[in-house]
Amino acid sequence: MRARDLAVPWATVPLDADAASAARLLIAERLPGVLVLDSQGQPYAVLTGDRMVRMLVPGYVQSDQILAAVIDEPHADRLGEGLAGRQIADCLPYGPPFLPEVEPDATAVEIADAIARTRSPLVAVIEHGPGRRRLHGVITAAQLLERLLTAAETV
Amino acid sequence: MRARDLAVPWATVPLDADAASAARLLIAERLPGVLVLDSQGQPYAVLTGDRMVRMLVPGYVQSDQILAAVIDEPHADRLGEGLAGRQIADCLPYGPPFLPEVEPDATAVEIADAIARTRSPLVAVIEHGPGRRRLHGVITAAQLLERLLTAAETV
Repeated sequence: MRARDLAVPWATVPLDADAASAARLLIAERLPGVLVLDSQGQPYAVLTGDRMVRMLVPGYVQSDQILAAVIDEPHADRLGEGLAGRQIADCLPYGPPFLPEVEPDATAVEIADAIARTRSPLVAVIEHGPGRRRLHGVITAAQLLERLLTAAETV
Repeated sequence: MRARDLAVPWATVPLDADAASAARLLIAERLPGVLVLDSQGQPYAVLTGDRMVRMLVPGYVQSDQILAAVIDEPHADRLGEGLAGRQIADCLPYGPPFLPEVEPDATAVEIADAIARTRSPLVAVIEHGPGRRRLHGVITAAQLLERLLTAAETV
């Protein structure tokens, strides 16, 4: 099996999508994450549930965990308001986007290694051609496990 | 809201459970991870999908990513056989177990910070008492997002 055979279509959201809508998509579909596309429709980032939660954590708490304890319960309960009116692009952390990916011809070992190394529940399958990249789909950790366990049973 | 109010019962597996069975549980129930209990029934680790996948990656590939490319497709497809006859305890990496957790009285900010800091799709809610620990349940990133978005809408 190769990554191109395992890749399945996946929920995508543009970088300028409403952050709360992206979170609702993840919740409603029970997805481990969504794929964020840039303004050219090219894969830009994988936004997992834990990374969406991070968008809600105030910067000063991210810098100093101790400060989480000084926010009282009524204020903490209003954390979700932080997403109102914001686009995904506004919520992503500084630095290179988190985009775990494999080439379409990656083997099961290479896919497993990419998932393990990035600690991501999903990887994008991206073909790098001259001038552009082509998205083949997504492979989740669960889907890879399922295929490998099935293969092991049929030996 | 406090962690104790958000915690829900969760799928658990003992440390001596068959590793392949634990993977099948995760796949069948579409869970982001399972909770591993030690021989006293106390919470020991959170085993997420990506960490289950890591159990399949040969040690030499974990040490040197380049070596993933030298395993040909037929051999890579047999990766799932690595779980056969092994217990979860045999598959966990060295080092302290990965057990993202919060206290029962943690606020939404503290839960969000724990999820973001550990990059885990779920955290265990554990009460530390004299001589023992009591598991209240689990909170997932999606569940926390849902509660916080709902709270933001009803303001």
